Amino acid sequence: MVKKFIVAVDLGGTNLKCGLFDRNLKVKAKTLFNTKSFRSRESLIQGIAGSVDCFLSSHRVSLNALLGVGIGVPGPVDARSGLVHFLPNIPGWKEVGLKKLLEIKTRVPVFIDNDAKLMTLAEHYSGAAKKYENVLCLTLGTGVGGGLIINNVLYRGGDNAAGEVGHFPLSENGPRCGCGARGCLEAYIGNNKIIQDARKIFGPRITLEEISALAGKNDPRAVEFWAKAGKTLGFALSGIVSLLNLDAIVIGGGISKAGKALFESIRREISCRAMAVQAKRVKVVRAGLGVDAGLIGAAIMVKINS
Amino acid sequence: MVKKFIVAVDLGGTNLKCGLFDRNLKVKAKTLFNTKSFRSRESLIQGIAGSVDCFLSSHRVSLNALLGVGIGVPGPVDARSGLVHFLPNIPGWKEVGLKKLLEIKTRVPVFIDNDAKLMTLAEHYSGAAKKYENVLCLTLGTGVGGGLIINNVLYRGGDNAAGEVGHFPLSENGPRCGCGARGCLEAYIGNNKIIQDARKIFGPRITLEEISALAGKNDPRAVEFWAKAGKTLGFALSGIVSLLNLDAIVIGGGISKAGKALFESIRREISCRAMAVQAKRVKVVRAGLGVDAGLIGAAIMVKINS
Repeated sequence: MVKKFIVAVDLGGTNLKCGLFDRNLKVKAKTLFNTKSFRSRESLIQGIAGSVDCFLSSHRVSLNALLGVGIGVPGPVDARSGLVHFLPNIPGWKEVGLKKLLEIKTRVPVFIDNDAKLMTLAEHYSGAAKKYENVLCLTLGTGVGGGLIINNVLYRGGDNAAGEVGHFPLSENGPRCGCGARGCLEAYIGNNKIIQDARKIFGPRITLEEISALAGKNDPRAVEFWAKAGKTLGFALSGIVSLLNLDAIVIGGGISKAGKALFESIRREISCRAMAVQAKRVKVVRAGLGVDAGLIGAAIMVKINS
Repeated sequence: MVKKFIVAVDLGGTNLKCGLFDRNLKVKAKTLFNTKSFRSRESLIQGIAGSVDCFLSSHRVSLNALLGVGIGVPGPVDARSGLVHFLPNIPGWKEVGLKKLLEIKTRVPVFIDNDAKLMTLAEHYSGAAKKYENVLCLTLGTGVGGGLIINNVLYRGGDNAAGEVGHFPLSENGPRCGCGARGCLEAYIGNNKIIQDARKIFGPRITLEEISALAGKNDPRAVEFWAKAGKTLGFALSGIVSLLNLDAIVIGGGISKAGKALFESIRREISCRAMAVQAKRVKVVRAGLGVDAGLIGAAIMVKINS
């Protein structure tokens, strides 16, 4: 019998998303839960297993037709053994053998990786990074995560921890970062810092979406605001561009919706600071798959590992 | 007939080194010329061809027994076509098809690459990077060059320009760098800047070797001097360590002889600033092959491409 379906799971600090995909990675059904509605780690794991069962019964898919379950999690993972080291934004997760626990419950192969890596895989497979060999994918959110495609393959590094671009040090005595160090990129352009800066300029009720909309209408303060964020990000990226001679940098996450003002500023800073050949090569583009990139990446992981 | 010999060439701004190697990469003979003694590009190319002839006749090696000629040059190269884009420290070299020119003269296959890449290849093949999968090799000299081993293979990037770690920006308004930008790593720890800083402390006649010797005897000013350089270098490297989850950083070139004071400071800065898992993984070690690393790398290039 041909195995025809994949269940993909994107476990986030806010939402638990699940999707049923066919072999061609077309989505057949999706569910969304509030992650915090699960009171314990066990109930969350049970919730994932329950979603798998629910997809199978509602779509009359037999267990034999299921290729596997792919899960993206927001933290460091041993992708080979399926061990989740810890999840900074979901309490109670430390050294959890999620793959084994779920394989017992679901009776199908389970694959687990870090969410930024899966977003990277998805953007390279079918999104904005599709035609490029060497790519850095960034997600700009509360944290600044990332993943690297090197010679057309997801690059992992010795501990599957490669791609962490958020903790690039920008200044010896910069603002304190959540990681404990000072002056990390994330401490400058993580959502919390960006919104804090924005409120000083635009008042206490402004949202990032509103500043992006203003910038879209060429509001000078909004354009300047995003240009400043782009300059900081471009400064950090220019060193990476010189080092890795990348074909493209793909930027996703909330802030990536800021548009031209942000992207042009990033490009300008890279062309000033990176070496000429490398600066000329690299394209800086917005992610193509939107909020479902992690879910799609989880499905791709099952497909390419099966 | 088994091809048994390789000629390797390390073309530097100061010296032109040539070596005759056997298939096992044992050196049979070496020559050293002053690069400036060649009055023109043509005479330099003729000098290389002459060295090949000279090795063959002095060691009674027939042309048929020569696997090829490998050349490392101090600048950007298209390694596939053997086109030298330019050599910042050797006048008159711009878009020179060195491979073709030398193949006509020598009648054997010629391979050309950037010297920092060949040093990296050599350190990974038989030096300090031998047992590591993902490595950054640095050369600290007038310039700060580098090369990357990713998944056990020399990583080139889209234009064969990967590895340029010297132009990592450390500060927006830092000292002007030779590349035109401001605040590059090279503008802080290139030999010229280091010696300029040293003379302010140790007087106008001090050499870097002398400061290293003083540090070896625990002279507090010398230890502090190298610790400061190490802190700057470690600051830049910590971002790369978080990004690439490297197994090792191999440091060669003149300053690498500074010893413990330099290396411990680099390690300290990385363990403060890089992410914990990545900082724990990475070893920071001195290059193992010394001044002949480039020459050995050129021989290895011929061996693995033949």
